Amino acid sequence: MRFLHTADWHIGKKLNGYDLLPEQRDAYQQIKAIAKTEKVDAVVVAGDLYDRALPSEAAVATLDDMLVDLNRQEKFPLLAISGNHDSGVRLGYGQQWFTSTEFYLRTTLASALKPITIGDTQFFLLPYFEPFQARQFFQDDQIKTVNQAMARLVAAMQAKFQEGQHHVLVAHFFAAGSQHSDSETAVQVGGLNAVPVDLLSPFDYVALGHLHRKEALQNEPTVKYSGSPLKFSTSESEDTKGVWIVDTDTTPVTVTFKPLKPWHDLVVLTDSFEHLMNPEKDYDVQSEDFIAIELTDTMPIPNVMQRLKTRFPRVIELQRINQLTVTPDELDIHQVQRDPLQLMTEFFEQVTQHPMQVTQQKWAKEALQAAEKEDKE
Amino acid sequence: MRFLHTADWHIGKKLNGYDLLPEQRDAYQQIKAIAKTEKVDAVVVAGDLYDRALPSEAAVATLDDMLVDLNRQEKFPLLAISGNHDSGVRLGYGQQWFTSTEFYLRTTLASALKPITIGDTQFFLLPYFEPFQARQFFQDDQIKTVNQAMARLVAAMQAKFQEGQHHVLVAHFFAAGSQHSDSETAVQVGGLNAVPVDLLSPFDYVALGHLHRKEALQNEPTVKYSGSPLKFSTSESEDTKGVWIVDTDTTPVTVTFKPLKPWHDLVVLTDSFEHLMNPEKDYDVQSEDFIAIELTDTMPIPNVMQRLKTRFPRVIELQRINQLTVTPDELDIHQVQRDPLQLMTEFFEQVTQHPMQVTQQKWAKEALQAAEKEDKE
Repeated sequence: MRFLHTADWHIGKKLNGYDLLPEQRDAYQQIKAIAKTEKVDAVVVAGDLYDRALPSEAAVATLDDMLVDLNRQEKFPLLAISGNHDSGVRLGYGQQWFTSTEFYLRTTLASALKPITIGDTQFFLLPYFEPFQARQFFQDDQIKTVNQAMARLVAAMQAKFQEGQHHVLVAHFFAAGSQHSDSETAVQVGGLNAVPVDLLSPFDYVALGHLHRKEALQNEPTVKYSGSPLKFSTSESEDTKGVWIVDTDTTPVTVTFKPLKPWHDLVVLTDSFEHLMNPEKDYDVQSEDFIAIELTDTMPIPNVMQRLKTRFPRVIELQRINQLTVTPDELDIHQVQRDPLQLMTEFFEQVTQHPMQVTQQKWAKEALQAAEKEDKE
Repeated sequence: MRFLHTADWHIGKKLNGYDLLPEQRDAYQQIKAIAKTEKVDAVVVAGDLYDRALPSEAAVATLDDMLVDLNRQEKFPLLAISGNHDSGVRLGYGQQWFTSTEFYLRTTLASALKPITIGDTQFFLLPYFEPFQARQFFQDDQIKTVNQAMARLVAAMQAKFQEGQHHVLVAHFFAAGSQHSDSETAVQVGGLNAVPVDLLSPFDYVALGHLHRKEALQNEPTVKYSGSPLKFSTSESEDTKGVWIVDTDTTPVTVTFKPLKPWHDLVVLTDSFEHLMNPEKDYDVQSEDFIAIELTDTMPIPNVMQRLKTRFPRVIELQRINQLTVTPDELDIHQVQRDPLQLMTEFFEQVTQHPMQVTQQKWAKEALQAAEKEDKE
């Protein structure tokens, strides 16, 4: 059979205050289109459907729409687990009804040992869990780490393997590459709470969620992170996001990456203020793109954020990558004496990376007047 | 057909800090037992399933268990709407799947005009709504009140009436009795936002939620509040809680009240401290009952809450119903000088109705020592 592997939707996530729901709806539409074009037999979502344990009403409504559309309208069997960002209880509300249309949402450890069979494949759906839950489940105080828990869980799952079937694990945890070749996971995952991929070898494929880059386990042919459908931080700005199409009827399974095109990209621009503000210079960004700016300048720039936003409306981050070469003593002292409010405004913007609001300007003015008055008394 | 009418479950509600989930589970079991004994064809829950728009995980899990049990295990068709305490969006998550087992949960105004037919009866499920929602729905700026909205909604529902069927409205709002005989609703409901029962006459029965006392419309034979299954405040201490069993195959419909027995009752005791503390006196309360105390005493009583709790462990309220007859001048000034900490402790308990905790006692002691020191300096 053939399925689509995605994860880490993080519905409801905001990017420095910018609502990502429209982007997430767009990415969802692309995923659905791929599922249809590829004629998959099922869609797998490996955890972190929501961004928060307590998602907003808008996030709940959006995810509900997507699940209804994919499963009830488009009739794709759907296999999903809760991730560490989800509340299993809240996400899982109503899950017993979902199976009526082959939507298998699993949020408890116990359910991982009740595989779902679709076509020629048994799916083991293991939600994110903490070691204490495995300790309780197996009634074994020796289980202290995810690693130890996984050894027990994999053995218990193997006992449920049916011969002649393929076996897929869907899970949400840190997995570490076997050959120390995957530097990214080696850096990111910590010791005993990383699951070595060797432990997962009984499965024909492991569909993982948790890390947002598909490259996290790039040297493992059958243990994969799908990565998130969108870039959620500047560290992901160079990523190509997408989903895996997995065919289980070859040995080993065949995996194909299908990219998603960001509606509004997340771009890091590293340049001087003068260049950035120069309309002649073409940065290959769209006006609605999310822009992180790394300023190379070494001199203070008044109203820097406000001015940058006239050219790039959705600046999500502003960083200086070089030290200022002037000390406060060298600054034009006359300017300070001439307009403390202006200086305060610039300082505010540099620290908060937001322009001062009207009310804030009023407060600043009042505070400065009070200070001046006190000074004179 | 025959159905059970309940409402205002308020799952997750606390009573002065006491978790009511165990009481709510017990009440649920009684409701289920009545549904089984009475062999009803459906169960109606007329809103306020949760106590809060953002229920706790424990509340979500508890309600989910009840709904699964009643509908999936016991196979009762279930008709429910959101009330003003619910978030329609959160409660309604997954609702499209629920219909697979005849669980009809409705949370939007539009759904009220799509009746559900069970046996010989059309059910119109109207969730709690604000006038602006009706204004938007009907695209009519003239709709300013619930009353006006209901006139429009009832007309639209009537257009969906099928001949030969009975018609039941399930709703969650203030309704006012037609004959000014129902003093309770007359007092409680305010002017234009109360729906006069005359407006509801096209229906064979109206199953309401919102007010917690079944007596709220006691002179209306076919427009009923079921009331809450539990006593949620001292004003409800004298209520008999329960559910209605409604038979639609008579004209008018036949309604029968079935009481629920509180596991732990909510009782108001009005007496003197001396009587209350006297073990000889029998108040006909169980040790786990929730007790609201109205003290008749006119003298200060040291450590009153702490001492009352030795006899009644779950005091939820403490009120003095008589004025103190001593003025501060008449109080024993020697006691004040002897032990300020003791006085402070009593004052704290009288104001907060909780005993002072160990840490709080420490803070009080330190504050008093500091004050004393300052006094001497």
